[in-house]
Amino acid sequence: MHTSLIIALDWFGIAVFAATGALVASRKEMDVFGFALLAIVTGVGGGTVRDLLLGRLPVFWVQEPAYILVCVIVAVVLFFTAHLPESRYRLLLWFDAIGLSLFAVVGADRALDVVPSPVIAVVMGVVTATFGGIIRDILGGEVPVLLRKEIYVTAALAGAAVFVGGKALGVAEPNALLAGFLACLLVRGLALWLGWSLPPYRARPGRPQDGSRR
Amino acid sequence: MHTSLIIALDWFGIAVFAATGALVASRKEMDVFGFALLAIVTGVGGGTVRDLLLGRLPVFWVQEPAYILVCVIVAVVLFFTAHLPESRYRLLLWFDAIGLSLFAVVGADRALDVVPSPVIAVVMGVVTATFGGIIRDILGGEVPVLLRKEIYVTAALAGAAVFVGGKALGVAEPNALLAGFLACLLVRGLALWLGWSLPPYRARPGRPQDGSRR
Amino acid sequence: MHTSLIIALDWFGIAVFAATGALVASRKEMDVFGFALLAIVTGVGGGTVRDLLLGRLPVFWVQEPAYILVCVIVAVVLFFTAHLPESRYRLLLWFDAIGLSLFAVVGADRALDVVPSPVIAVVMGVVTATFGGIIRDILGGEVPVLLRKEIYVTAALAGAAVFVGGKALGVAEPNALLAGFLACLLVRGLALWLGWSLPPYRARPGRPQDGSRR
Repeated sequence: MHTSLIIALDWFGIAVFAATGALVASRKEMDVFGFALLAIVTGVGGGTVRDLLLGRLPVFWVQEPAYILVCVIVAVVLFFTAHLPESRYRLLLWFDAIGLSLFAVVGADRALDVVPSPVIAVVMGVVTATFGGIIRDILGGEVPVLLRKEIYVTAALAGAAVFVGGKALGVAEPNALLAGFLACLLVRGLALWLGWSLPPYRARPGRPQDGSRR
Repeated sequence: MHTSLIIALDWFGIAVFAATGALVASRKEMDVFGFALLAIVTGVGGGTVRDLLLGRLPVFWVQEPAYILVCVIVAVVLFFTAHLPESRYRLLLWFDAIGLSLFAVVGADRALDVVPSPVIAVVMGVVTATFGGIIRDILGGEVPVLLRKEIYVTAALAGAAVFVGGKALGVAEPNALLAGFLACLLVRGLALWLGWSLPPYRARPGRPQDGSRR
Repeated sequence: MHTSLIIALDWFGIAVFAATGALVASRKEMDVFGFALLAIVTGVGGGTVRDLLLGRLPVFWVQEPAYILVCVIVAVVLFFTAHLPESRYRLLLWFDAIGLSLFAVVGADRALDVVPSPVIAVVMGVVTATFGGIIRDILGGEVPVLLRKEIYVTAALAGAAVFVGGKALGVAEPNALLAGFLACLLVRGLALWLGWSLPPYRARPGRPQDGSRR
């Protein structure tokens, strides 16, 4: 039963991440096949890295080519409609936030199928959620999402941790999935809306380094 | 019988891609070991990604170290001769085109060994053909090949699709391989020669968005 | 017996590479979770690529989550102390040199567990030693270590070759490990200290190309 929910979330996550890949392709004025390739690697990239690390081979989309077709359809639709929204970049960020939230819980859940470690489950949630976007930004020549200042990795971590913690505390799987998804979306959404960031590391060149290990 | 043809094409593809890696190393004025590393990752990179995704592990060159030695020999030869051709960049693009055409059909053929899906075979052809060059450009600090304007992904797609389509229609494997190879080389070659590109996506800021989903 | 030595070297290598990831995060003024992610991918990145290529799946840290925890601890400690050393960049380069030397021998040793080829063992030593830093530089937006002029790949190659050669000549494993480690550290250390580089490839536009294959 829960399996069909996970599968639905996974499909939705792949479609919205594929859309972010296509939007990056539109920013770089690629042709329609460039849209398709970037949509595919972004849509299935995070889950592919997860499957490789866990040893679930061949990776999921090799066994189910329909995932690829969905990415291609999304790419073609956006090739013809990406000029319609007022701000493509804003749309990209929000689609990315939804995909991030979906993959944070789906990735953690998949890891628990293979190893029972909560640490690994959280790490796999973060990896699945972030690597599609990382690959997209590297191939598309964008500033890597990791280097932007607003909270990003932290949101994926929050989502995966809420899901894994919830399950460990005996919460029913669908509820834990929903709670983790909402936790990530809330954190990332507030970060986007309010420009939230955590205190960054700051070099302190002028400060006297009194006391500690001079 | 056909297997020996595939193996020959694979070796040739690895050698020409290794040469493109060495040519990028020459553009960056690396030392001879930098040449060798970039030749190796470019030569075997596409096939390595393909084998990882398909779960054919350890990857092909771990089982046959001679692939690595060929890349090293190509790197050393080019370290001493790369100044001879008139335009190294032009040479790089043409070697890349030949490697692209070879790997588009070889990659698709290898995928059909693992899964019978034509969609996956075409995707694996494109992945095998393009990822060596993508890794080369990222590690070598070049503008990623995906962001250049001339037809590139499309050529690999054409080659893989002709090969897979031909086989599905009952064409003998060597003929299908040759047809796919020539289709890719023709498309990419014309793109290089004539500066061909497909219509790119263009932002339309000033156009009134009449009708559709305002 | 030797196994516990290898494991100790591996842990130490992961910790120092994690520190280099955290130092790059500090240069980019990331938040503490950015520190953690960059420390993790740098610390376990080289070994992860090695395990993927060799087909040792799931990769090593999925089976032993403590590796991840060590990277996180290193990241948190550096988040609060990275301003103390006088030159963070110098520290980064020296930690990187130690990690490079450790992973060159550990990576080669792990490869010999899977295939008996000395060529593959040396290649895997170089891959394990260099890919953590390559991933760190790509994700952290630094100039890729491969493009810097001082000897780098060559040092890893020297370390792996000394270890593999020593074992082939019958040297006891702990001695071969130590010799390979010191060989790499010596070469890289002298390169850092004295600015050593190998003769790079140089374009020769004006030179008459007499004789050879005109």
